[in-house]
Amino acid sequence: MNASPLPELQSTLNRIRPVDQSVMAAVQSRLDRQTKPTGSLGRLEEFARQYVAITGREELRRKAIFTFAGDHGIADEGVSAFPREVTAQMVYNFVNGGAAINALARHAGAEVVVVDMGVNHDFGQLEGLLDRKVGRGTANFAQGPAMSRADAVKALETGIVLGLSCRGAGIDLVGTGDMGIANTTPSAAIVAAFTGLPAAAVTHRGTGIDDAALAHKVAMIERGLTLNHPDPRDPVDVLAKVGGFEIGGIAGLIIGCAAEGVPVVIDGFISTAGALVACELHPRIREYLFAAHRSVEVGHAAMLERLRLQPMLDLQLRLGEGTGAALGMTLVEAALRLLREVKTFAEAGVAEGTKC
Amino acid sequence: MNASPLPELQSTLNRIRPVDQSVMAAVQSRLDRQTKPTGSLGRLEEFARQYVAITGREELRRKAIFTFAGDHGIADEGVSAFPREVTAQMVYNFVNGGAAINALARHAGAEVVVVDMGVNHDFGQLEGLLDRKVGRGTANFAQGPAMSRADAVKALETGIVLGLSCRGAGIDLVGTGDMGIANTTPSAAIVAAFTGLPAAAVTHRGTGIDDAALAHKVAMIERGLTLNHPDPRDPVDVLAKVGGFEIGGIAGLIIGCAAEGVPVVIDGFISTAGALVACELHPRIREYLFAAHRSVEVGHAAMLERLRLQPMLDLQLRLGEGTGAALGMTLVEAALRLLREVKTFAEAGVAEGTKC
Repeated sequence: MNASPLPELQSTLNRIRPVDQSVMAAVQSRLDRQTKPTGSLGRLEEFARQYVAITGREELRRKAIFTFAGDHGIADEGVSAFPREVTAQMVYNFVNGGAAINALARHAGAEVVVVDMGVNHDFGQLEGLLDRKVGRGTANFAQGPAMSRADAVKALETGIVLGLSCRGAGIDLVGTGDMGIANTTPSAAIVAAFTGLPAAAVTHRGTGIDDAALAHKVAMIERGLTLNHPDPRDPVDVLAKVGGFEIGGIAGLIIGCAAEGVPVVIDGFISTAGALVACELHPRIREYLFAAHRSVEVGHAAMLERLRLQPMLDLQLRLGEGTGAALGMTLVEAALRLLREVKTFAEAGVAEGTKC
Repeated sequence: MNASPLPELQSTLNRIRPVDQSVMAAVQSRLDRQTKPTGSLGRLEEFARQYVAITGREELRRKAIFTFAGDHGIADEGVSAFPREVTAQMVYNFVNGGAAINALARHAGAEVVVVDMGVNHDFGQLEGLLDRKVGRGTANFAQGPAMSRADAVKALETGIVLGLSCRGAGIDLVGTGDMGIANTTPSAAIVAAFTGLPAAAVTHRGTGIDDAALAHKVAMIERGLTLNHPDPRDPVDVLAKVGGFEIGGIAGLIIGCAAEGVPVVIDGFISTAGALVACELHPRIREYLFAAHRSVEVGHAAMLERLRLQPMLDLQLRLGEGTGAALGMTLVEAALRLLREVKTFAEAGVAEGTKC
């Protein structure tokens, strides 16, 4: 959270290393000596293995959820059930602690870092808000690119700086979150661009639009893809043409965290769009990710499939902000507690089972 | 946790009331005014509605997980990967705080109450263990009934006393757990008895048996059902013929909690067998239950379907002890925090969306 100059995107990507498989095996070996049937803690064992292999630690110091906010020109097309002003209003709500992410972060014992990546509002000096504005909302991608390539790189590098600062600040687990009226629209466009799936297959109701608005939303995404033809082999181009500032911030945060060996719990549809941009830039980044939950948004499944990530939770959430990530972080914490605290058969004087 | 005389089973069942639907509607109305798209917190909203309607509270005071232990005569047939002595050894591990349930209960901020319902071991006076022994393990149900009808009633009433004591002790959310080598075998027999499904369809590997042992386990369940012909219209008969002392304790705990208006988060396969016995005795009891997770045990799906309960989590757990329940309790707590802490649109000055 310092104000150091933006790092070069490519040099940060170059620092990303594979997660150490030998550490995973060592953790599993310890889990297998604990007083429980082998493998009986299921995915909690996987979470423990992955966290320790990424961080080299068995403990968690600080946890932080970065909630990135940005506005979207495509909102002018009536693709959301909410007016555009709500992005800024919700930023105030976050800063005042009154939103769902604040409640769930308190539940998880995590800090919320609210980042203005491009809200169309002048917050002045607002305590609790990081001003990292790349612009005052993107342009309407149904009429041209959402942002310039330079702004896309700036959004990514802004997120990278935040990610790089975590480990030194004692943040051992990061969650991602988003706020931006209309941002399921760029997220659907991003997954369509990378996968080649038709817009209709990955577009859903967002905050709750009706059938007519949904059909229009699909048409706007189709128009944006046809007009701007984002190049799926060039993730920065996809982000620039049909993305969003907060999505770029999320992607950058993930890249920075991966470079520093900090695991990231990604939230739902918008956060996973950011993760997709990051992983298309460097496929190994997926090894640093926990997918918190399966969103109600239909396009989320295609994202998770492309990332080969299995969600931790399926609670029919469709809120964003980082709410699912907060819950996912508690499962990582539970897994670490098991790893640290459960006695082995030898320690507890319990007879072992027969191996199968 | 007092030592009052055992209440009559039927009189406790008679006290169970439907959960108040009007309270659920009032809670939903408040959730719908909060700063988020309507319904966007998915199942967390359901958990909040259900908890408040059951308890009349929006807060949680104490949380407790009751881990019931018992031995099983059917273990003589080699249906488990672990030796029978492990039941008692794990009870010591629970009391000493070294098992997975202890770690996850600490994570959840819940107490663990360890109850000896029928372990084949003399613990003497052991601090942290409630001695409620109904017998020293059940009989081998492949050769005759697991227990007498009187002992089945005693197991149920023992659990009922514990359940009835919760509310007065400030325990607002209860979790169930089990320990008993071989106890997936009676659990599979119970679901087969109630549903009429073949034993092979509801029987799985428990702590990790191989194919030959699994085939033998199925054969032993078939023999137990044929030999004892438990009457599915008489749940006490099913518990007596093919059940277990700890399963009776779990069923009774659930009945007592439902009678007192205390919600219960049920754990996996064995706990859900107990819930099945309770709900076959009084179908309204299901309204008081949260199903913590979907177990790896194949027969669990048939139980949940019969109870019409949707699990909160699917983490591929197959440990028991109450481990899944501990995690499920944290989701109820998260839901209540959202209900209490998220500001309304009016309070936060956020514009509402259009209704769809």
